[in-house]
Amino acid sequence: MKFTVKQIATLLEGEVAGNDTLAITGLSKIEEGKPGDISFLSNLKYEPYLYTTQASAVIVDHSFQPKKPVLSALIFVENSYSAFTRLLEEYYKQLSFSRIGVEQPSYIGDGCQLGEQIYRGAFSYIGKNCQIGRNVKIYPHAYIGNNVCIGDNSIIHPGARILDNCVIGQYCVVHPNAVVGSEGFGFAPQPDGTYKTIPQLGNVILEDFVNVGSGTTIDCATMGSTYIRTGAKLDNLIQIGHNVDIGRNTVIAAQTGISGSTKIGANCVIGGQVGFAGHLIIADGTKVGAQSGVGKNVVEEGTALNCSPAFGMKESMRSLAIFRKLPALEQRLTVLEKKNKKES
Amino acid sequence: MKFTVKQIATLLEGEVAGNDTLAITGLSKIEEGKPGDISFLSNLKYEPYLYTTQASAVIVDHSFQPKKPVLSALIFVENSYSAFTRLLEEYYKQLSFSRIGVEQPSYIGDGCQLGEQIYRGAFSYIGKNCQIGRNVKIYPHAYIGNNVCIGDNSIIHPGARILDNCVIGQYCVVHPNAVVGSEGFGFAPQPDGTYKTIPQLGNVILEDFVNVGSGTTIDCATMGSTYIRTGAKLDNLIQIGHNVDIGRNTVIAAQTGISGSTKIGANCVIGGQVGFAGHLIIADGTKVGAQSGVGKNVVEEGTALNCSPAFGMKESMRSLAIFRKLPALEQRLTVLEKKNKKES
Amino acid sequence: MKFTVKQIATLLEGEVAGNDTLAITGLSKIEEGKPGDISFLSNLKYEPYLYTTQASAVIVDHSFQPKKPVLSALIFVENSYSAFTRLLEEYYKQLSFSRIGVEQPSYIGDGCQLGEQIYRGAFSYIGKNCQIGRNVKIYPHAYIGNNVCIGDNSIIHPGARILDNCVIGQYCVVHPNAVVGSEGFGFAPQPDGTYKTIPQLGNVILEDFVNVGSGTTIDCATMGSTYIRTGAKLDNLIQIGHNVDIGRNTVIAAQTGISGSTKIGANCVIGGQVGFAGHLIIADGTKVGAQSGVGKNVVEEGTALNCSPAFGMKESMRSLAIFRKLPALEQRLTVLEKKNKKES
Repeated sequence: MKFTVKQIATLLEGEVAGNDTLAITGLSKIEEGKPGDISFLSNLKYEPYLYTTQASAVIVDHSFQPKKPVLSALIFVENSYSAFTRLLEEYYKQLSFSRIGVEQPSYIGDGCQLGEQIYRGAFSYIGKNCQIGRNVKIYPHAYIGNNVCIGDNSIIHPGARILDNCVIGQYCVVHPNAVVGSEGFGFAPQPDGTYKTIPQLGNVILEDFVNVGSGTTIDCATMGSTYIRTGAKLDNLIQIGHNVDIGRNTVIAAQTGISGSTKIGANCVIGGQVGFAGHLIIADGTKVGAQSGVGKNVVEEGTALNCSPAFGMKESMRSLAIFRKLPALEQRLTVLEKKNKKES
Repeated sequence: MKFTVKQIATLLEGEVAGNDTLAITGLSKIEEGKPGDISFLSNLKYEPYLYTTQASAVIVDHSFQPKKPVLSALIFVENSYSAFTRLLEEYYKQLSFSRIGVEQPSYIGDGCQLGEQIYRGAFSYIGKNCQIGRNVKIYPHAYIGNNVCIGDNSIIHPGARILDNCVIGQYCVVHPNAVVGSEGFGFAPQPDGTYKTIPQLGNVILEDFVNVGSGTTIDCATMGSTYIRTGAKLDNLIQIGHNVDIGRNTVIAAQTGISGSTKIGANCVIGGQVGFAGHLIIADGTKVGAQSGVGKNVVEEGTALNCSPAFGMKESMRSLAIFRKLPALEQRLTVLEKKNKKES
Repeated sequence: MKFTVKQIATLLEGEVAGNDTLAITGLSKIEEGKPGDISFLSNLKYEPYLYTTQASAVIVDHSFQPKKPVLSALIFVENSYSAFTRLLEEYYKQLSFSRIGVEQPSYIGDGCQLGEQIYRGAFSYIGKNCQIGRNVKIYPHAYIGNNVCIGDNSIIHPGARILDNCVIGQYCVVHPNAVVGSEGFGFAPQPDGTYKTIPQLGNVILEDFVNVGSGTTIDCATMGSTYIRTGAKLDNLIQIGHNVDIGRNTVIAAQTGISGSTKIGANCVIGGQVGFAGHLIIADGTKVGAQSGVGKNVVEEGTALNCSPAFGMKESMRSLAIFRKLPALEQRLTVLEKKNKKES
């Protein structure tokens, strides 16, 4: 980013007090402001920093009146917090989609259709017969297999792997080293103790606005599709088994694992390091505490679960509280037993 | 895949009723059949779908007699389920080994010996003095270090890393972004609180028919070898520490971690998200429930363990059942105490 | 490595008995010695192997006197264990920094400054305006984004991803397929149930002597920096959230996850598969048992924690011991209740 204070003030519909020709190259918290940064003051708890910050400009509310001299340029706006957030988002959008064009060497197979404003980084690989939408960004070392579709405005980060026949919707982000569509873990035990590989021929479908975190792995379906529905957000190092279906706007924290064929409803909130057994059906709006292990279907919407194996959140809290005082509990029991013995 | 119904019938030694010139390009379940697909009917529960499916052909048993008109071509065989499975496997084998030749740019160091029918994808890297067997498939972005041996018919998927001196047997599959032979976590504490790196100079040996899941990491031995024995199957995002030894035909589910120098026996079945401490010896045929933590040797073959720390599966089930009703248990104790107090 | 026995003896200031012209190409334990290997004998429990080993040379103490004929050359030194360790370290250092020069094709953006004795492997990618120090090794398929600084003597292994604006200190090692500086998991819930992406604009700073294990992911800060302090060692498949701060010389075992904004003190020892909630402050010298879940601040230095949710190590051991005998405990309670009923 490189703007003048004046340009930013215009974008934010604000008024400048101070030097409006200064160049702004970064954003920061007011207590960490460096020359070239723009910051904001909303919560007046932070006001003392205003008088010492090195930031070149600070966004403040129209109603704010400095009590001491300020070195930074001030941009007065209706709501300083919203204005700063808007600036962050503009800057972020600009950054995310700034790369355009093709770096060499890169590889693309026959029969591909490419939209406009695509970025294809050096050492990126696109197989045969792929459809890549408008404004898609394929970073260096990304791998796109054969017959893959990627919708407009999606970003495939460095080292992400999208395997054959997968479908990526619009506005999806696949983070570095994530794997989408690898073969699931299907092995049929044989009488001699060995295992035979079960062919995995399906794909993965990410609908729109899906986030796949760094290092996360999503297995393709045995037949048919593994689904990650619109708006679902997966954090880093998550494992999604074959034929799983993750509902709309469901959020899953890092290092959670979902076994094959489990269907998670919409608007669920799943903590980190949770495990789900296979072939489950989990109701919409289910909440699961971190490190829980879910082994049964969840029928009622909005259920909150905890523990391994998981049961009701409140009940689990009570059991866990007593778990910590189990030695005292046993002691109480022993006291009773002794009394009882004496009496009888 | 592109075959006619007639060609498939010949392969399966079946007889066709209907149009045997239709082109078949995919396989599907009967309830999801699209034009160009072949499906099968075995369980008669699914018979209604036969009369509505869009599949171009359906495999049925010789004994089967349709009760209504069928639009799809029918292929009559001895056992429709086995025939379909055979078709799946043929198709899968064809797919898995379909890539042949060298895409450019790719890199290969001096002194390598390469078998026939190899695939080397664009941006694949092979170091010095490697031996790569017949029909090996090295996908784009795969990295093979120096002095690596890979046996016939093994597949190294995109972004997999095989580090120096490792040995991969025959018919192994290393899935995308797996790491085989990285340096183990060896650090010796020093008197000043810092840690000194312990040199890691060994390798990893995958014997034959080994599966290494996406994102799984297997550390090399400090000296000697980390072993994954013939037929062992590792799912995604598993961590295998240095000098570990995983026995023949042992199956490990996703996100499990095995600490350094632990030896797991043959034919074990290990659930997901399990942890093993280091330097353990685990007997053949051990079964471990998901999310368990194994901290002690397992001496008896066929032991089933659960919980963290792990103990007998059955005993753990009883303890877990009571854990859930701990509040009631405490209540019962309190009642007794009150009575007792009153009486004395 | 390729040295003669004589050269090694000179390095170790030892004296040779036997053939000092033999070529040494590897190191091994005495019980696994092959021709070309050098080994050592320190613990006399292993003396019988000295008379059968195939190793070309064995390092022994000055004081040692063989009781039978030995085929290997012997190198007599002050302390055979230290001498062997020194040899290991020399060899390891040589190996780690042996690669020099640029393999083609590789990619480097405009405005980079490169030190001497750098290795840039084939298919490595370096963005714009990077500063790469002296003796840095960037392996094949490594990705370095824009504006990245890497200090002297650091190693970036195959497939590691260092994203824009990150700072890597001196003597750091980033292992294969690790991700440093990916966007954190920041999503603000909207009234309609969807989530809006919170811009992630900060970076990651690895100070000096930091180890980042294979497949480990470290998210950039929302604003400011995620810190991994000098001498911290992270094992494989660890997740570090945005704005986390890991203290000096803290060691974290594999598959542990640290949620956003948590600050871990110096000299902590964290087991494998541990989870930390977000926004915690953990005192210096804290020890956490494997698979624990830490949900609260740790105020006192040197605290030892265990269990999920975590509490005192000793207390947890007592509770876990009773957990295993909960069925017996309930039985005892039932007996008391029955007696009590009879009596009243």
